[in-house]
Amino acid sequence: MKQFMGDDFLLNSKTANHLYHDYAKKMPIIDYHCHLSPKEIYEDVHFQTITEAWLKGDHYKWRIMRAHGVEERYITGDASDEEKFMKWAETISLAIGNPLFHWTHMELQKFFDYHGVLNNESAKEVYELCNKKLKTLSARKMIEMSNVTHLCTTDDPIDDLRWHALIKEDKSFKVKVMPAFRPDKSMSINRNDYLDYIAKLSKVSKININSFASLMEVLKKRIEFFNENGCSISDHGMDLIVYKEASEEEIETIFQKRLNNQDLSQDEIYKFRTAFLLKMCKEYAKNNWVVQLHYGVVRDNNEKLFKKLGPDAGIDSIGDNTQISMLAKFLNALAKTDELPKTIVYSLNPIDNTAIETVIACFQEGPTVSKLQHGAAWWFNDHKDGMEAHMKSLANEGMLAHFVGMLTDSRSFLSYTRHDYFRRILCNLVGEWVENGEYPNDELYLEKIIKGISYNNAYTYFNFDVEEK
Amino acid sequence: MKQFMGDDFLLNSKTANHLYHDYAKKMPIIDYHCHLSPKEIYEDVHFQTITEAWLKGDHYKWRIMRAHGVEERYITGDASDEEKFMKWAETISLAIGNPLFHWTHMELQKFFDYHGVLNNESAKEVYELCNKKLKTLSARKMIEMSNVTHLCTTDDPIDDLRWHALIKEDKSFKVKVMPAFRPDKSMSINRNDYLDYIAKLSKVSKININSFASLMEVLKKRIEFFNENGCSISDHGMDLIVYKEASEEEIETIFQKRLNNQDLSQDEIYKFRTAFLLKMCKEYAKNNWVVQLHYGVVRDNNEKLFKKLGPDAGIDSIGDNTQISMLAKFLNALAKTDELPKTIVYSLNPIDNTAIETVIACFQEGPTVSKLQHGAAWWFNDHKDGMEAHMKSLANEGMLAHFVGMLTDSRSFLSYTRHDYFRRILCNLVGEWVENGEYPNDELYLEKIIKGISYNNAYTYFNFDVEEK
Amino acid sequence: MKQFMGDDFLLNSKTANHLYHDYAKKMPIIDYHCHLSPKEIYEDVHFQTITEAWLKGDHYKWRIMRAHGVEERYITGDASDEEKFMKWAETISLAIGNPLFHWTHMELQKFFDYHGVLNNESAKEVYELCNKKLKTLSARKMIEMSNVTHLCTTDDPIDDLRWHALIKEDKSFKVKVMPAFRPDKSMSINRNDYLDYIAKLSKVSKININSFASLMEVLKKRIEFFNENGCSISDHGMDLIVYKEASEEEIETIFQKRLNNQDLSQDEIYKFRTAFLLKMCKEYAKNNWVVQLHYGVVRDNNEKLFKKLGPDAGIDSIGDNTQISMLAKFLNALAKTDELPKTIVYSLNPIDNTAIETVIACFQEGPTVSKLQHGAAWWFNDHKDGMEAHMKSLANEGMLAHFVGMLTDSRSFLSYTRHDYFRRILCNLVGEWVENGEYPNDELYLEKIIKGISYNNAYTYFNFDVEEK
Repeated sequence: MKQFMGDDFLLNSKTANHLYHDYAKKMPIIDYHCHLSPKEIYEDVHFQTITEAWLKGDHYKWRIMRAHGVEERYITGDASDEEKFMKWAETISLAIGNPLFHWTHMELQKFFDYHGVLNNESAKEVYELCNKKLKTLSARKMIEMSNVTHLCTTDDPIDDLRWHALIKEDKSFKVKVMPAFRPDKSMSINRNDYLDYIAKLSKVSKININSFASLMEVLKKRIEFFNENGCSISDHGMDLIVYKEASEEEIETIFQKRLNNQDLSQDEIYKFRTAFLLKMCKEYAKNNWVVQLHYGVVRDNNEKLFKKLGPDAGIDSIGDNTQISMLAKFLNALAKTDELPKTIVYSLNPIDNTAIETVIACFQEGPTVSKLQHGAAWWFNDHKDGMEAHMKSLANEGMLAHFVGMLTDSRSFLSYTRHDYFRRILCNLVGEWVENGEYPNDELYLEKIIKGISYNNAYTYFNFDVEEK
Repeated sequence: MKQFMGDDFLLNSKTANHLYHDYAKKMPIIDYHCHLSPKEIYEDVHFQTITEAWLKGDHYKWRIMRAHGVEERYITGDASDEEKFMKWAETISLAIGNPLFHWTHMELQKFFDYHGVLNNESAKEVYELCNKKLKTLSARKMIEMSNVTHLCTTDDPIDDLRWHALIKEDKSFKVKVMPAFRPDKSMSINRNDYLDYIAKLSKVSKININSFASLMEVLKKRIEFFNENGCSISDHGMDLIVYKEASEEEIETIFQKRLNNQDLSQDEIYKFRTAFLLKMCKEYAKNNWVVQLHYGVVRDNNEKLFKKLGPDAGIDSIGDNTQISMLAKFLNALAKTDELPKTIVYSLNPIDNTAIETVIACFQEGPTVSKLQHGAAWWFNDHKDGMEAHMKSLANEGMLAHFVGMLTDSRSFLSYTRHDYFRRILCNLVGEWVENGEYPNDELYLEKIIKGISYNNAYTYFNFDVEEK
Repeated sequence: MKQFMGDDFLLNSKTANHLYHDYAKKMPIIDYHCHLSPKEIYEDVHFQTITEAWLKGDHYKWRIMRAHGVEERYITGDASDEEKFMKWAETISLAIGNPLFHWTHMELQKFFDYHGVLNNESAKEVYELCNKKLKTLSARKMIEMSNVTHLCTTDDPIDDLRWHALIKEDKSFKVKVMPAFRPDKSMSINRNDYLDYIAKLSKVSKININSFASLMEVLKKRIEFFNENGCSISDHGMDLIVYKEASEEEIETIFQKRLNNQDLSQDEIYKFRTAFLLKMCKEYAKNNWVVQLHYGVVRDNNEKLFKKLGPDAGIDSIGDNTQISMLAKFLNALAKTDELPKTIVYSLNPIDNTAIETVIACFQEGPTVSKLQHGAAWWFNDHKDGMEAHMKSLANEGMLAHFVGMLTDSRSFLSYTRHDYFRRILCNLVGEWVENGEYPNDELYLEKIIKGISYNNAYTYFNFDVEEK
């Protein structure tokens, strides 16, 4: 029996251990997609209690506490931090097989030097230990302990990026903190607050948005502004990938209807979304940016909790199947005029894995190495089974060796251990192939592959090499 | 090489063996969903031949015999019991990797003390041995040998539950045999025989059903009646989960149209089904019942065989994908007014596993422990791969430790070995995690988890504890 | 650590090794579905360079080279054969986990006696070695080295089968080379060039096709002609399985519209396809042919590359989900009048595996052994994970022992090693079950199963036994 979450955690062969300890572990981290707050980084916040650090905003944890039968008062309610922590400890102690069980203990090991098991019996001790340690741990400290070199936050086009600028000026912090451009609100023409948003965007850009053309003009300027501030990545979150052609006039008419507060049909919404996303992608291509397409989510399913807690309350789920042919048509519409940017596709439903691989393979184009990427196992798939399924599917249909690897997608400074989790799973998979004689035991190639997926591929893919020249 | 289906069958580690032999194996069985006949239990039937016990009603076996090329005469036709058994023996001997191969041999081992292999060579000997043993085996004997404490049959609202009453009165039989409420016929407004059914329901309830309101009234009374007779579980079998809102008036109009034998549109049928199921679920919630939602089936695909054999002829299949967003909307419609009962969701298509987990997690609510459950791998998924996929998906997204576990879903008294099959697979999975250092080797927690999933979770979840106070 | 791709490649137990080396390896090959050119076989072509043999027409390889960032010039462009090979060597050296990595090295081992690793370092040596060996390797030589006994090409109804006739006359070549009937162009009523095709078909058959009835008459005659030339297999490639009933009159009207170059609605196209495929299948049933249904493909996604390279350019993908209920209805429409031929169903999307198993099981009918088959893991699934998933799904739901096994589906004479790949994976799977005590270690049965799936099942299923009497 292996030691509980010891040095060889998830590493089930000699080769796996070697690849992890000699290559993967030593590589720094590029976190090209996360939801950390640049303000909190600049201000180098401290958390008062481990409850604040772990449970204040983490809806992954809220969900599993609810499944454990914990009442809302102890999750998002007015119970004390200690009471909440006790409930969390009880929950996690029984969460066998869940990635939260592993992440929790990896975080305890790395940041708090605690190597026991969190459960009812140890909860009090762990609570006190963590709170004590937190006095010496700050946002920046946790990022630095994780050996992060680059970190991309997620930002709306209206953002002034002042915190990014301040961080950049502060020479005491070596980590490159860059914005990522996420214009979801600009595209969400069907949302009730769309016109308010457009008004804000007009104000920020000092251009009156009174047409689709002017909206595009404004966003183009925001892209320039983000670009000047070190941004090279954009991101779109969607329920479905849609592709519905329309003329420029039609799009202009749809946008005018929306400005006049008229109702839009589903068809009109899809036409608008298609046109919007195509225009944006062409702009990204011009700037040599990478676009991330995240799709397959239904948000805020539980009205009762939504009314109480708002968005990101742990009430999102995998949505209805998208038509994969839409993705192919969308990519083709860009590729046929040589305006397809580097693109990373993520679906929340793991059953889409193989279909995605087969679609993106149709649009790969040198000299860019794996110009299209199937993004890392995401959100509900961010566990051993999900990562293995993703990487096997990528290997079976394309070039795993060129995968840009892991991201945290997290709101927590403690989540960097997820990179460690990923790398162990990667090394175990590759190690197994080598041990089984399915890939040569050639040190040169294995080093290149493991270091590439851990760090180097992302460094090149996101143009960090170009930028830093 | 391990012994063929020996003591350590499916248990591939020391920990797996320990968990199974010291905990799982010793727990009794709650069979909360089966299709056994309460009449046969009350009458304590004997089977004359193993063919009668095995092949008379088991469409799982019919399917595989057909795939083996056996002619219908030897499956459901007029061949002798011995001839049929010979064909079955030949079929199963080549059914490598099929759960029927394992179930058959587990049943031979447990009930007939036969530990060899069933094939052409042994068929005659096994046939005689089983037939001889069957003289001492009766329905009740087989249930008792399986250590069953609770057993829920599947019953239509029109059922008078007389056999359940008789069994309850018979103090010589200690097993609690309870009805489960399955009003599929009451909901199937599109079936040709719907009005006949409604007439019968009127008669049984002594209330003239001339409106949707009166239909609801009658079913409410039948729920009360079932409740008084120990029922705490309901069940709905559906092709798809649908969610289509309509006003009460609209529903009343649709129902009147049906009473007048007018055709209904698909849209009207879906509105009716939505309203019906919502009303029923609210009623179940009031009674603290559990509702099971089984969906994803297309029945009676093969008209030729259907005409010959009727329903349950081994000609059902997985149906078209349901829109998972419908499930979310349906659950939300109940949760928003605090009328969501404890719910177990089963989809026949295993590709729905992850999506289901993510939807039900949005509606978990303390203090109930895992109020929503993703039901055990069902029907075509009732095998090692299917169970492992289900349990891993449950563990990855929620609390496997609170899973209410296995059911037989069977028409046969011999099928209780499926619980043993399930428990071995469970213990192997958990054992593997412990051996790999992915979960602590903590006896207290492991015992709680294994005993919980084997028995204790179901006992609490279905209110058997409350009832028996 | 096992030797890199040694004798025990993919064979992870003693039993697996035994099954492969003592049974599977020794069996000859029936390649019942490939895209080899009968002309090239008759003419016994030689390839000048390994680039010509490997890269000229293999769009699997083109895709992965593009994913590696190779520019089109070195893939399908005007670079020299040696330059292209160098790019290929670099690509494959990093294609860890991809089946092309394994196929490439298996081909190097078998046909070129090269047992090293292909990479940048060895590329030059391998290029020269292969080119030298190719002087002694011809199309027929490669087929004979692979121990192929039967080989079915893929042919349009208009084909005159002259090359097949010539091969048959040539007594020096012992391999039976048979045509397979693939009337996709006859069914593709929505294609722009449909009328041209119909004109050609009229000419070949010397019957003026001026009605659906006459089209059917012509195809019936072509089936007779193919039948006389040794054909017993047909094949249909489709985006989706559709089932939409229509009267004969309606179909005639639709066909007349097409002849008059009028536009057809999607509904009309589906009705035509349904009627066409039903008629064909009835004809196949009369002739005791096998029909293969390949579906789930979207072709030519990338317009830019399509314009440059035409079809089969490595720009195809998995398509939108088909409604599985359509398949059930289609099969039922044939079964209800006893006109269902032996049918092999292939879906390109691996998530359809279980659903397909459950549908075909509804139509199995003795005395034919596994009359309906779930076809081998196809195209994008033709790898270890895909084959294992397919075989497990087949075993779980039906009779793996009666599986007709592997095909190459290839345009290359070197691809026969894929049978070896498949057999190793099969033996490993069966071996694992035996080692784990899940199936008896009974030599008689294991030999029957392994030899059956490797060769004997196909021999019987495709009527090669009958024919050769």
